[in-house]
Amino acid sequence: MAESLADRGERSLLDEIRRLVPSGGRVLVGPGDDAAVVASSRRPLLLTTDALVDGVHFRRTWLSARALGRRAFAVNASDIAAMGGRPVAALLSVVASSRFPAAELRDIVRGVRDGARAVGAALAGGNLAHGRQLSLTVALLGEAPARSIGRQTARVGDQLFVTGALGAAALGVRRLRRGGASDSAIARWRRPIARLRAGESLARRELATAMIDLSDGLLVDCDRICVASGVAARVHVDCVPRARALAGLGAAARRTLVLTGGEDYELLFAVRTSRLDALARARRTFGCPITHIGEIVRGRGVQLVDDRGRIVPTPSRLGHLHFRTR
Amino acid sequence: MAESLADRGERSLLDEIRRLVPSGGRVLVGPGDDAAVVASSRRPLLLTTDALVDGVHFRRTWLSARALGRRAFAVNASDIAAMGGRPVAALLSVVASSRFPAAELRDIVRGVRDGARAVGAALAGGNLAHGRQLSLTVALLGEAPARSIGRQTARVGDQLFVTGALGAAALGVRRLRRGGASDSAIARWRRPIARLRAGESLARRELATAMIDLSDGLLVDCDRICVASGVAARVHVDCVPRARALAGLGAAARRTLVLTGGEDYELLFAVRTSRLDALARARRTFGCPITHIGEIVRGRGVQLVDDRGRIVPTPSRLGHLHFRTR
Repeated sequence: MAESLADRGERSLLDEIRRLVPSGGRVLVGPGDDAAVVASSRRPLLLTTDALVDGVHFRRTWLSARALGRRAFAVNASDIAAMGGRPVAALLSVVASSRFPAAELRDIVRGVRDGARAVGAALAGGNLAHGRQLSLTVALLGEAPARSIGRQTARVGDQLFVTGALGAAALGVRRLRRGGASDSAIARWRRPIARLRAGESLARRELATAMIDLSDGLLVDCDRICVASGVAARVHVDCVPRARALAGLGAAARRTLVLTGGEDYELLFAVRTSRLDALARARRTFGCPITHIGEIVRGRGVQLVDDRGRIVPTPSRLGHLHFRTR
Repeated sequence: MAESLADRGERSLLDEIRRLVPSGGRVLVGPGDDAAVVASSRRPLLLTTDALVDGVHFRRTWLSARALGRRAFAVNASDIAAMGGRPVAALLSVVASSRFPAAELRDIVRGVRDGARAVGAALAGGNLAHGRQLSLTVALLGEAPARSIGRQTARVGDQLFVTGALGAAALGVRRLRRGGASDSAIARWRRPIARLRAGESLARRELATAMIDLSDGLLVDCDRICVASGVAARVHVDCVPRARALAGLGAAARRTLVLTGGEDYELLFAVRTSRLDALARARRTFGCPITHIGEIVRGRGVQLVDDRGRIVPTPSRLGHLHFRTR
């Protein structure tokens, strides 16, 4: 029998976790006191939180505990990327049953720590509470750029771009649900990449008028920019970059995954036409490809058009619904 | 039938929540974007997180949704108080089932907002996720004093003090478990008070060498200071201030509640003898009474003594155990 949280004893486990995440860098006092102490910052601060719940956002058999920890960090870092910011310090709050293996909890902590370290941030503290259903809640403190990029400031005429390619993460989930073991789509779902370099560069160079990360699917997230900005978007379906993992699928399945898949954590952003040349020059700083997929227009909602400009019906299920169980 | 989260629709509910917590003050961008934006601070930052899980930390019948929200804020604010800091901005992450009443979620949000506002902080953002067991995780950003007060710096000879009086919250829980409806002990449990004024004053005047908030009981939390500082503590049992709500109980029950009760969220702090006069002069700034309960000595652990200096055996159950269900 693997050692459980109850066997291990809370204090000795927390002591061990503290050793996994020493203070250092911007974190002046790490885990182990009433609160973590982080060096002050001249920039405005960013704060975001996101939770991963067992059976809702993942199943325990779908990825290792360490990958789960990395994922919990990455989905939060993606929100910081979407504001053009930089992650600084994370808190991890775990709810787990007393039968949960102590070794897995340590690996979750290691995963969050690894994810933070990889982008120059740190795991600064956290909390462990008893509960029947495993959940990981990360809260992430970041630094904002001089002008952070919201959702409300897209303007008619702005051109829409996405980073990377879409659809692989959703295909990965579909395959995991059917018992798939490992392929490039599953690997993409397991290890989301927050587009921090792209987000920061777009903010620093004042290239984007509005930005969001694609957590719930292109149509849903694009509509969020439209609603917040009081505009509509025209998206050229055939221009939306499809992940290579979708190659073997039929056209309809590919389109659904690309438009509604979610969990790709790519960035969608709007650029004023007068800044398109500057955008082209800055591309090499993004660390990932970007693709022009449409434009902001007058009206409401997201309109899909094909390569001849004809309107394409939107899929009936628009994107990720949060109150659905995996 | 009350309207549930599933009936209400996530987007319209989140829109409504956004209206409950507008931006303002230090929060430049509140809920509704990828991350909240908070004005920069010259001081070091404090970060803490704590979760309340249904059936573990509370039962839904024990307090209103609004009081639950206030409580979730207060237990985090208490950690900021224990560092001598000031709360600035909170994030609220809720896990709830799709059948959870939408009106209760709104009241939870209002409760966190009220708790934050009452101490000059703000609810800046959050997350809502599906799960079978209700949980509230608050992450709180605060500002540290020039010298924040940790647990590691108590020295032999320091005198130990607590704010307020102990035992009422634990008595309240005991009565709630037996179906009690409302009395002063239950009221105390329902509405913990973070000792922010006392914590900040102790830090600003450099009066305390070490400090902790009493969430898990005096013996457990005092031992945390001892372990972190490599010292022992001698606590004069009869000096520990007992809450008035304990008056009707027998001596043994009173002692157990006062020493091991937990959830009082009072502050325990150590003061160098050379600073005792300054402490006496500063008392009126604390907003609550303080009581001298013992001293830091050489050795390990917490030793209890009676009014004649004789050693008193420590209770067998030392304090709050996290992996226990309510």
